[in-house]
Amino acid sequence: MKRISASFLPPIALDYRSKTPMYRQLYDWFRRAITDGQMRPGQRVPSTRSLAAELKISRIPVLNAHEQLLAEGYFETFVGAGTCVARSIPDDTLGPPAVKARKGLREEAGKLGPRRMSRRGAALTHVPAQSWLDNLGAFRVSLPALDHFPIGVWSKLVARHSRRPPRGIMAYSDAMGYPPFRDAIAEYLGAVRGVRCEASQILVTTGSQQALQISAQVLLDPKDRVWMEEPGYPGARQAFMTAGAQLIPVRVDHDGMNVAEIIPRGRNARAAYVTPSHQYPMGMTMSATRRMLLLSWAVRTGAWIIEDDYDSEYRFGSHPMASLQGLDADGRVIYIGTFSKVMFPALRLGYVVVPKDLVPAFSAAREAADIFSSTLYQAVLTDFIREGHFARHIRRMRMLYMDRRRALVNAIQIQMGDMLEVIGAEAGMHLVALLPRGTDDVAVSRKAAQRGISAMPLSICYLKPPTRGGLILGYGGANAHQIHDGIRKLRMSVQGH
Amino acid sequence: MKRISASFLPPIALDYRSKTPMYRQLYDWFRRAITDGQMRPGQRVPSTRSLAAELKISRIPVLNAHEQLLAEGYFETFVGAGTCVARSIPDDTLGPPAVKARKGLREEAGKLGPRRMSRRGAALTHVPAQSWLDNLGAFRVSLPALDHFPIGVWSKLVARHSRRPPRGIMAYSDAMGYPPFRDAIAEYLGAVRGVRCEASQILVTTGSQQALQISAQVLLDPKDRVWMEEPGYPGARQAFMTAGAQLIPVRVDHDGMNVAEIIPRGRNARAAYVTPSHQYPMGMTMSATRRMLLLSWAVRTGAWIIEDDYDSEYRFGSHPMASLQGLDADGRVIYIGTFSKVMFPALRLGYVVVPKDLVPAFSAAREAADIFSSTLYQAVLTDFIREGHFARHIRRMRMLYMDRRRALVNAIQIQMGDMLEVIGAEAGMHLVALLPRGTDDVAVSRKAAQRGISAMPLSICYLKPPTRGGLILGYGGANAHQIHDGIRKLRMSVQGH
Repeated sequence: MKRISASFLPPIALDYRSKTPMYRQLYDWFRRAITDGQMRPGQRVPSTRSLAAELKISRIPVLNAHEQLLAEGYFETFVGAGTCVARSIPDDTLGPPAVKARKGLREEAGKLGPRRMSRRGAALTHVPAQSWLDNLGAFRVSLPALDHFPIGVWSKLVARHSRRPPRGIMAYSDAMGYPPFRDAIAEYLGAVRGVRCEASQILVTTGSQQALQISAQVLLDPKDRVWMEEPGYPGARQAFMTAGAQLIPVRVDHDGMNVAEIIPRGRNARAAYVTPSHQYPMGMTMSATRRMLLLSWAVRTGAWIIEDDYDSEYRFGSHPMASLQGLDADGRVIYIGTFSKVMFPALRLGYVVVPKDLVPAFSAAREAADIFSSTLYQAVLTDFIREGHFARHIRRMRMLYMDRRRALVNAIQIQMGDMLEVIGAEAGMHLVALLPRGTDDVAVSRKAAQRGISAMPLSICYLKPPTRGGLILGYGGANAHQIHDGIRKLRMSVQGH
Repeated sequence: MKRISASFLPPIALDYRSKTPMYRQLYDWFRRAITDGQMRPGQRVPSTRSLAAELKISRIPVLNAHEQLLAEGYFETFVGAGTCVARSIPDDTLGPPAVKARKGLREEAGKLGPRRMSRRGAALTHVPAQSWLDNLGAFRVSLPALDHFPIGVWSKLVARHSRRPPRGIMAYSDAMGYPPFRDAIAEYLGAVRGVRCEASQILVTTGSQQALQISAQVLLDPKDRVWMEEPGYPGARQAFMTAGAQLIPVRVDHDGMNVAEIIPRGRNARAAYVTPSHQYPMGMTMSATRRMLLLSWAVRTGAWIIEDDYDSEYRFGSHPMASLQGLDADGRVIYIGTFSKVMFPALRLGYVVVPKDLVPAFSAAREAADIFSSTLYQAVLTDFIREGHFARHIRRMRMLYMDRRRALVNAIQIQMGDMLEVIGAEAGMHLVALLPRGTDDVAVSRKAAQRGISAMPLSICYLKPPTRGGLILGYGGANAHQIHDGIRKLRMSVQGH
């Protein structure tokens, strides 16, 4: 059994003043010497006694390092033969870093081309930079008026729940959500949105995006067809694409998704994704006729309807529209909602109302996704709802957003009446402003982002290139001054284009 | 234009003392009358004036209800002809609930068989009831000692961050995570786990389960092969199955996953999932030789290694093992960790260390999954780490778990030495106890659950049926008394079987 002599050991440099303990420095040194090929499999290692003497340190750190290297299998011992580098370590894996880099390192992307990931992963990477998401000021879509949030009440409730937390708030909890929170959601939806459900059908999620992705996973196989509103919500597109679904654009008109047009063309679909209360981004309401047609199609063909009711709390003219789910006697509608807009986005709480027979599958899918939602905020929000703060906050915000919407429409009419055409119902937290024909809305959005203005291009909501570009302008998070100033900058961005 | 006379209107019953506003009662009544087929398309609706007179109520709620039904498209108006039920509502969608139920309602599962969902969804539903997860006492796996958590310090930090939260903590934030938190994680992993990374490579997740699912989505196409440790972690299996991957079991021996055995058999795989620091559930450490073999295989074949370092903070004998990621010069390792076990499960914070060139894909996949993690706990945990509480907590828990492990091993030896054979290294928060050959571990687990004891069956960690069953017993969340009492009840469960 030939072993390389220990005398070839490269010099060991220890830093006696380092915070890294001595044993760890030795361990790291040996490990690197082995993986870099300076010490070869079978090479003898000096005894702990002689190494300690040579390095002029106590024997204890040397023993500790040896022990760890033995435990991890870098060293091996032979009776009567001391210790050597494990001979089972494959020779071809060892070598100086430069050699290894030539052999395999492709981290410096571009040199050797991208490395293989999944088709999903590659598709996800191809999303172009969304510079309109760089800013949190005017006119960031979906951003509520954070400075009007009742933070005093909220933080008192947070303190109450985190000071002496019941065991349940720290341990693992139900994948479906915190039971008192599910009760509160079911009650709220029944009273305010006309949703017919029991608390057992509520799945708490980290927001509507997770609700969409879990729905896609449970309902859709790769290549399954899904009807999408055109234009529609890009987040839903991402979720369905991740499930491998094939997206079929269905034109939206003043009555919402044109179901009447697509049904006779007989393109079978497994599901339809709709925002009937307040179409995203155009803002119309789906008419009763369309709702009925869609439901009867779903019952007839065994398809699913995914209803995303993302911001129906805010309607300024008429009363809020009742949900499509409430019309469904057949358990064909999966109803999705979120607290990100009514409360604040970093809350990360949303929900799905799941047809009863699908509850086990949704629960298992949530468990596979990320087990369950953090409990603290669920408990805090339950109290916030039960104690009446939630209803009060919605009422106050409804007035505020109505004012802000009016301010935005006025500012556009005065400063940009010749450039922008406002559409979208008197509802929600954003409106759509169409640009003159031929204007590239993505280019305008990028110009605006450079001026610190977030203006989402309408064209990213389309699957097929649209005939006319536009901007989606959120007014929830901007006060009158910011709106005025923002429109001034937006004007320059359109002109400068 | 023939219209059905309004005189056929069914009786309207209003509850004058209800909390539901009058306009809403009227609206609901009309909507139901239409969808239930009591009012037909084209049927004339009484004028608001006459209806208000007939019902002896003010005209305002009647006007409001009318307006809403017009807005939603249930009613339509004709010049000079008043209002009627919209004639565009398709007749075949209308009818009394009983008829609709016969036509379509399949919610009462079983009667007409389950309704079609995706293959993924169906597979997820087939997981049998896991009654061992019903209890949070002894010997719930992965549950830390919540009563020893420094809740005073923690809740002070929570209060500090939630009282006057910076805008960033409430608004939308980076999909990769809260930047100061990512800095803290990168530093910690470099110092303690030998992970080589920059903060820009850290993706904050809601726990290791989400980290696994996102990795699977980015790296694996349906039917791609993944090497899984046999036995191995069921949560990883769920995540890879959700991505449609094909799981190849690779036997685990005293050196961890037997890479040497699988490589020559040439079954190409896209990825290998390993727990090298502390194999789940068996507890051994992967030897240096195996680590090198696995890395060189990954570099040679372009495969990925998913390293799950779920509880390496706790080692009672030797020092914690350095990560496999630290040996990887080729960016082939995706390193996953979690705070659920060191801190508490409901925190929902974990992380992935992503090879640099994969960062855009992981970030986009996180965005498609659920956009970003709630910011409050990220900010609080950053302070908890920076102020030294984290390191102190780990040191204290290491001593505590060492004691609890000893108590459990003693209790088993004294009370069940004839029934259980303890295996698993001196590490982590659980051990494996093998049952006598021929004992059905799932049956034992169910019996134990009836006695309030959580004892996870070992066989659920296998892809192929194992030759010998066992129990995975967590000791993190149980004190000496609970351990003693738990083993007494477990003895009865094995005997009673």
